[in-house]
Amino acid sequence: MIAYLGPEGTFSHLAAQQYSKRLGKEERLSAYDNIYSLIAAVDKGEADMCIVPIENSIEGSINVTLDALAYDFNLYICDEHILPIQQNLMVKKSFKKEDIKLILSHSSAIGQCDKMLKQNFPHAEIKSVSSTAFAAKTAAESDGSTAAICSENCASLYGLDILYPACNDEDTNRTRFVILSKKQNFNVTEHDKSSVVFALDHKPGTLYRALALFDDANINMLKIESRPLKTELGKYIFFIDIEGNIDNSSIYFALDLVRRNTLFYKFLGSYPCRT
Amino acid sequence: MIAYLGPEGTFSHLAAQQYSKRLGKEERLSAYDNIYSLIAAVDKGEADMCIVPIENSIEGSINVTLDALAYDFNLYICDEHILPIQQNLMVKKSFKKEDIKLILSHSSAIGQCDKMLKQNFPHAEIKSVSSTAFAAKTAAESDGSTAAICSENCASLYGLDILYPACNDEDTNRTRFVILSKKQNFNVTEHDKSSVVFALDHKPGTLYRALALFDDANINMLKIESRPLKTELGKYIFFIDIEGNIDNSSIYFALDLVRRNTLFYKFLGSYPCRT
Repeated sequence: MIAYLGPEGTFSHLAAQQYSKRLGKEERLSAYDNIYSLIAAVDKGEADMCIVPIENSIEGSINVTLDALAYDFNLYICDEHILPIQQNLMVKKSFKKEDIKLILSHSSAIGQCDKMLKQNFPHAEIKSVSSTAFAAKTAAESDGSTAAICSENCASLYGLDILYPACNDEDTNRTRFVILSKKQNFNVTEHDKSSVVFALDHKPGTLYRALALFDDANINMLKIESRPLKTELGKYIFFIDIEGNIDNSSIYFALDLVRRNTLFYKFLGSYPCRT
Repeated sequence: MIAYLGPEGTFSHLAAQQYSKRLGKEERLSAYDNIYSLIAAVDKGEADMCIVPIENSIEGSINVTLDALAYDFNLYICDEHILPIQQNLMVKKSFKKEDIKLILSHSSAIGQCDKMLKQNFPHAEIKSVSSTAFAAKTAAESDGSTAAICSENCASLYGLDILYPACNDEDTNRTRFVILSKKQNFNVTEHDKSSVVFALDHKPGTLYRALALFDDANINMLKIESRPLKTELGKYIFFIDIEGNIDNSSIYFALDLVRRNTLFYKFLGSYPCRT
């Protein structure tokens, strides 16, 4: 069973459906109402794995996911999934553009479709609601004069017709999801990455020297993200993604050196790089 | 005039009051209803400066502030101000603990006072509202059975009595504010820091080599924070704080080298380190 951030019809749900298809077997999907509880579901054994957003190309990191991985649970990242965030304007079946008086969506989605809305619906009322899925549900229950901007899977879930597919102004919005499990992914592919999180002594040059351990081993760093240590302003933990699998001995020894030079260290997993 | 994130009675308002006191002259404070518009007020010349949260010791960076500094405005950080986030439980004047049936606050503040609430108000209803200032206003307008958890300045603003001062469970919650202005701060003190933001070529080792420029010059890095470049998943800009003032020649030359080795570079200012 795969846990995801519900309700049905969210982008997380779409990512879960796509990932389940990628696995090539029918996995039951189960909606949770916040990120913490869906990660906890894997920890408690309620779910075999979960799919959880970790980073968006516009908004940046999803802090609750990072903090849960570092502080609250001992789980592994066993895969990642990249979802292009494509908004769709939809309306109740058999209704048309001319019928639309009110357009609902989450505020981010409305922002992403700003130009399209100004161009095509200069006279419609635009209102932000709590989620794109809630917008879809409300449109489905309306008299046909209410449209929703939401993910494509809302069309079949709520019986809506897509009038404007992929209608966001820009096409650079992507969300990276990670798949978390109690089990490490031991498969090795040609194009893997590894993730670690660590805390350093609060002394000059410690981060630089930790990164030097990667550079010395010719390991390419893909990402560095800091989060507060939460005990004191100005102290941080670092999430680092590097190219390669821990199965590779140079990666293994570099990470072992990092581990021995940090106050806190957690290996989060090696998994295929999907970007 | 100093712009801050309103309404009156927020922690940003308290920080603005404290900073204005530190300046030693009566500055008019003006509330804005979001971070973007208060930074824009400085850019447009409506305000001489603004005080804006940039980092919290528990929650981490305030992304909208970082993005506005990098992408939207050319302003300088000319000072910083550290505010300990102390919650206070207050009630309408002359009412007591025994009168309280309902306690209101922002969800973060409720979370910060969880133990205190369980210990002292096991039977009261706890409800989250949009802001601590709104909670204070509602308590002031109630029949005395509603309490609010909010910043200390709400007591005088809304005519409330503080029953439990500094009532948060932990004392590690601090928010760092920066003061932004069109003018650079050219004063030099014994204990300054400098902030820059830059984007690097998307090639192996570029971040490490940029950080090496600081290490080679014996410059201590205080903070590194990444934000998405927003054009593509996996590309980032980096906010870096270093110890020292750009007035110092080794800092000046190191930053100049960084500038010449980056795709995008912005010097955000040198200013006194208040941590």
